[in-house]
Amino acid sequence: MASFTTRRRVEFRDTDAAGIVHFSAFLLWMESAEHELLRAAGLRVIDRGPDGIDASWPRVSVSCDFSGPIRFGDEVDVAVSVEKVGRTSVTYGFAFTHEGRAVARGRVVAVRCLLRPGRDPESVAIDDDIVTRLSAYRPTA
Amino acid sequence: MASFTTRRRVEFRDTDAAGIVHFSAFLLWMESAEHELLRAAGLRVIDRGPDGIDASWPRVSVSCDFSGPIRFGDEVDVAVSVEKVGRTSVTYGFAFTHEGRAVARGRVVAVRCLLRPGRDPESVAIDDDIVTRLSAYRPTA
Amino acid sequence: MASFTTRRRVEFRDTDAAGIVHFSAFLLWMESAEHELLRAAGLRVIDRGPDGIDASWPRVSVSCDFSGPIRFGDEVDVAVSVEKVGRTSVTYGFAFTHEGRAVARGRVVAVRCLLRPGRDPESVAIDDDIVTRLSAYRPTA
Amino acid sequence: MASFTTRRRVEFRDTDAAGIVHFSAFLLWMESAEHELLRAAGLRVIDRGPDGIDASWPRVSVSCDFSGPIRFGDEVDVAVSVEKVGRTSVTYGFAFTHEGRAVARGRVVAVRCLLRPGRDPESVAIDDDIVTRLSAYRPTA
Repeated sequence: MASFTTRRRVEFRDTDAAGIVHFSAFLLWMESAEHELLRAAGLRVIDRGPDGIDASWPRVSVSCDFSGPIRFGDEVDVAVSVEKVGRTSVTYGFAFTHEGRAVARGRVVAVRCLLRPGRDPESVAIDDDIVTRLSAYRPTA
Repeated sequence: MASFTTRRRVEFRDTDAAGIVHFSAFLLWMESAEHELLRAAGLRVIDRGPDGIDASWPRVSVSCDFSGPIRFGDEVDVAVSVEKVGRTSVTYGFAFTHEGRAVARGRVVAVRCLLRPGRDPESVAIDDDIVTRLSAYRPTA
Repeated sequence: MASFTTRRRVEFRDTDAAGIVHFSAFLLWMESAEHELLRAAGLRVIDRGPDGIDASWPRVSVSCDFSGPIRFGDEVDVAVSVEKVGRTSVTYGFAFTHEGRAVARGRVVAVRCLLRPGRDPESVAIDDDIVTRLSAYRPTA
Repeated sequence: MASFTTRRRVEFRDTDAAGIVHFSAFLLWMESAEHELLRAAGLRVIDRGPDGIDASWPRVSVSCDFSGPIRFGDEVDVAVSVEKVGRTSVTYGFAFTHEGRAVARGRVVAVRCLLRPGRDPESVAIDDDIVTRLSAYRPTA
């Protein structure tokens, strides 16, 4: 149901003393999968504008629901779709599976921002070219 | 609005190349604040039962909304409340502030589980004593 | 100079507010590269013995020297060699390069240990088969 | 035997699937303890100079030897001493104990550097005032 997929192997640092993957690893995988999608779309994760100001995509909202544990050495498939593109924000949906079994689902809202050193990120409108490129990753019906 | 509060100072590893705290740090602080609340309530985070089986609180759902950046060295106040206690689960709400300014809000649903080595966590009913102790941290009106 | 190589791309969580990769990322990459070498050697990172006791390789010593910064999105090549195999321990050497430029060198001593739940790791002699397999990754002259 | 001490409680994210604290947590604790020492010495971890250029202390070398495991919830005492102050670098020694039992020893070499955005850190001589303040944390005989 998603347009972009990637796969990761659980590393030892991803685990915790319950013997399973720590929940925070899924959140990090979401961010990295989002970045891989951006690159696959021909976009840079951090753009440096002609004025020398970086623009990137800080997140303003993250969520994740966990339905089954995974363990050290397991491979996890991450499917990402672009659920919505607003004026300044993008909503991504994530589905995690291990050997075909659903293990987690997540959602992230990232906002297009200028990053001036020492200043707070400042939201800006998303360029039409970026909108077009991201729209290729809409969820399929 | 919350019954339990704790404070952390942002460590260098909590930051990222945008110069601000990485979003995942808030999720880790939620887990640690939850554990501090459990200890303050006179509970153990991991109980070893008479049968030698550990019981603890894996999370099945996490979310966080970010409203302002914080930086290395900043102090952040974390307020935790027990929003709901179900048969097997507890819902916690978190409010993060820096110098009185709201910077993030989060929610976690943790489930009481038995942790048998090499087995998946298995949900169990929460003991009445635990329900009573957690109820002291209900949000105040 | 090393028998096993792998490549990683710097993820955003690997960076810090100095705008470069946090030193701890190199230490994590060492552990993961060691695990990849074990798998390439036909070994399991965690073996479950017939008695149900896991055996693995906790580290007793780590070190890393850093000679140049790398940044978000950079690819880093990790070369691993087995410098020494003792009765219970293995010494690994690591060389990190980015676009052919040396950026860090590290060393790890891992000890073959039984991991009994709730007990301290207990060192044991390394099986001859493991010694043979690891010896294929000695540094070349 | 060291001039500065601090204490931490092991958080859940510090652990791994071996049921003990992951080795990398000690490295992070070293960095944070070093920063606490700097603050205790009346110094800023990141100074912004009159020219707007930040100066800080990237590490060029880290090492740690582990002598005993610690677990979730344990308290760990960290003793830090300033072993050597060179022209541009400081060498710190760390001793970790849990309930009086040695669990790890580490060493870090940090270099005084200017951090210009987008440029590599550039080493600079340590001011006399900083040398004097750090010298108060020499190991005692």
